[in-house]
Amino acid sequence: MLSAEIIAVGSELLTPEKTDTNSLWLTGKLNEIGVEVKLKTIVGDDEARLEETIKDALKRSDIVISTGGLGPTEDDVTRQVSARAVGRSLVFHEHLVDELRARFRRWGREMPEINKRQAYVIEGAEILPNPNGSAVGMLLEAADKFLVVLPGPPRELKPMFERYVLPKLKAKAGEIFVKRRVLKVSGMGESAVDEAIAPIYKSFGSVQTSILFNKSEVEVHLFAQGDSDADAGAMLDDVAGKIAEKLGTAVFALNGESMEEIIGKMLTDLGQTLSVAESCTGGLIGMRLTDVPGSSAYFTEGAVTYSNEAKMRSLGVPKEIIEEHGAVSAETSEAMASGMRRLAATDHAVSVTGIAGPDGGSDEKPVGTVFIGYADKHSTRSMKMTLPGDRYLIRWRSSQAALDYLRRQLLKTPQ
Amino acid sequence: MLSAEIIAVGSELLTPEKTDTNSLWLTGKLNEIGVEVKLKTIVGDDEARLEETIKDALKRSDIVISTGGLGPTEDDVTRQVSARAVGRSLVFHEHLVDELRARFRRWGREMPEINKRQAYVIEGAEILPNPNGSAVGMLLEAADKFLVVLPGPPRELKPMFERYVLPKLKAKAGEIFVKRRVLKVSGMGESAVDEAIAPIYKSFGSVQTSILFNKSEVEVHLFAQGDSDADAGAMLDDVAGKIAEKLGTAVFALNGESMEEIIGKMLTDLGQTLSVAESCTGGLIGMRLTDVPGSSAYFTEGAVTYSNEAKMRSLGVPKEIIEEHGAVSAETSEAMASGMRRLAATDHAVSVTGIAGPDGGSDEKPVGTVFIGYADKHSTRSMKMTLPGDRYLIRWRSSQAALDYLRRQLLKTPQ
Repeated sequence: MLSAEIIAVGSELLTPEKTDTNSLWLTGKLNEIGVEVKLKTIVGDDEARLEETIKDALKRSDIVISTGGLGPTEDDVTRQVSARAVGRSLVFHEHLVDELRARFRRWGREMPEINKRQAYVIEGAEILPNPNGSAVGMLLEAADKFLVVLPGPPRELKPMFERYVLPKLKAKAGEIFVKRRVLKVSGMGESAVDEAIAPIYKSFGSVQTSILFNKSEVEVHLFAQGDSDADAGAMLDDVAGKIAEKLGTAVFALNGESMEEIIGKMLTDLGQTLSVAESCTGGLIGMRLTDVPGSSAYFTEGAVTYSNEAKMRSLGVPKEIIEEHGAVSAETSEAMASGMRRLAATDHAVSVTGIAGPDGGSDEKPVGTVFIGYADKHSTRSMKMTLPGDRYLIRWRSSQAALDYLRRQLLKTPQ
Repeated sequence: MLSAEIIAVGSELLTPEKTDTNSLWLTGKLNEIGVEVKLKTIVGDDEARLEETIKDALKRSDIVISTGGLGPTEDDVTRQVSARAVGRSLVFHEHLVDELRARFRRWGREMPEINKRQAYVIEGAEILPNPNGSAVGMLLEAADKFLVVLPGPPRELKPMFERYVLPKLKAKAGEIFVKRRVLKVSGMGESAVDEAIAPIYKSFGSVQTSILFNKSEVEVHLFAQGDSDADAGAMLDDVAGKIAEKLGTAVFALNGESMEEIIGKMLTDLGQTLSVAESCTGGLIGMRLTDVPGSSAYFTEGAVTYSNEAKMRSLGVPKEIIEEHGAVSAETSEAMASGMRRLAATDHAVSVTGIAGPDGGSDEKPVGTVFIGYADKHSTRSMKMTLPGDRYLIRWRSSQAALDYLRRQLLKTPQ
């Protein structure tokens, strides 16, 4: 598999506000033809660092792509520095100046003298035309490596890359078929997942596996490369199937879906409805459920009962339950769920009450104590969790725990 | 001025979807103490490339900061590779294992054996405690250079960097006085803000100004460097004051506060309460309001009335209003707000009903049509907006518009 590195050039990309987005687009295009991006660098208008970066990249990788630094001003250094990095000179192309001059005239302006800099091209490099701007790109093929020098503005870079660069790289990469798949796991830690599935993914050398923890779920990323599209797909299906079998119901998504999308799919398949009663999550669960287009088909209503009065008045939680067990208790969570279900006349209802912090914790119920309640027409039940993290994470994890608890109940619901 | 390089580690950061955001935050913090970021690298779980990157960075720059790759699994390679790059061994710390084991027990789980890897630290490096995760950080000072090794999750990295790393780097950087301040503006576009305030910031050469658009608000970033803390602060106060005067009530935050923090402060100062009725935002407004610790003092209740039945039953919106004007109308938004306020017995209530898309739009009411309702004891009113963007952005902008509408009503409320 060919390897690539991307170098973004420009001091503005080293400020706290700006991020390099060209490399994301380029990575997607490269992955599609089976080229792997191994490293990205962001460097300012700094000749020494840029030269070292280009040289190192060409030593390590098959394809090196730089973006930016091709403008006409003095701090645009990519042209001369990339020539120096490959030990070649810059050649002046009179026809490029003529074209630039004509372009400026079409805008009713005279070409400033400094734009002449943009007519210099690395000796032996192919000139990549730029219909959307004044800087041409360059493609140098030497010693079995590619150096591609592109302008920074996305609307100049993208068409240039697709039209002049991609076909050459594809020819070089050959017929490679790559596929990607993400499984998501709930209720297990990163290391427990790894321990369980390492024997599986280690027996599939041709599938790259990486395990990531993301706020409240573990993601298993699978990446396969095969001789045909079907071949790569079959390898992924095989590994994904074995992992799903091993982890059982802890796997909630087989194709990267979010928890709320999975809940939506399950409710749609069942043809049933849901309502939600939230305290510490303050609306987060409703927000997540309604993030899914078309969620009005199964989600009808939510109540954010932040105060005790609201829990009693809007959900009919008995005053005695709150007085005896507290607002954060199994009893209150169950009364919230059954009250919500009754009120909204839905098939299912889920509720959350807990202590998100930073204040409000006690020895008996520390910050992170959360009760999830659930009600359907047959019964009401609840579970207690103690969640780690700050206020933001406790709230997020509470919402995830509630949706996952609901998912496990829906799994038991007869079709 | 000291120079720094930032290295983000993790193969997931080399996919087309993920971008490294830690480096933006770190750059801001480093700039504040007068350290310039000269280069950023994003490298996968690739031992050879990571080792070369760390070595090169330490040759070129005074401060090298790596983020990520400190997890317990085999593809977390930063620990051993950074030790190798500086020619030191890793030392096993028994007390770190004990702490990890205790942490797992508090969550009611046994520590998996592979987490022992996280107890290895570069010889001679300072251990940076991590109250928010299982990976400790490391700080190595050698040959007048700093190597700082941080975990990847922002919630672990940020407090660790601020508490243990920043003071040391500040001492090294010496007495440079830089200050930063962010004003936030609602209801004006980026270029309109720029046109209005350019004459002001251009007259202050020593204050750097940048204007950024962020989902639904315009941010004015001010950055000053002075001979003393008071000097830099005074310059910022001067510019910020003139900008706030020019833009008037469009400026909602003078020190980077979020809209929900500002609303919380205003309601606390007034000693008044709020409830919220949401349709298309599905709980997002309640979630944002309750994101602020202590919000239970003024936010009592929310209703997510997604279906028409819920609007009628839970908020008392008259059936005739929905039939005559539709669920997305000024009349419905006002009936939602006044119904919510009556139900929850709060001083203020705000409501949202709209079409977030992708479906549900019509010629008369296209996707993005949103009505915001407001009620207090004196009156009920509403406003219509047509918001651009996809479902996510329309929902976010609706929540922001509702909170901003509420803010403008609260500005008129007598103390």
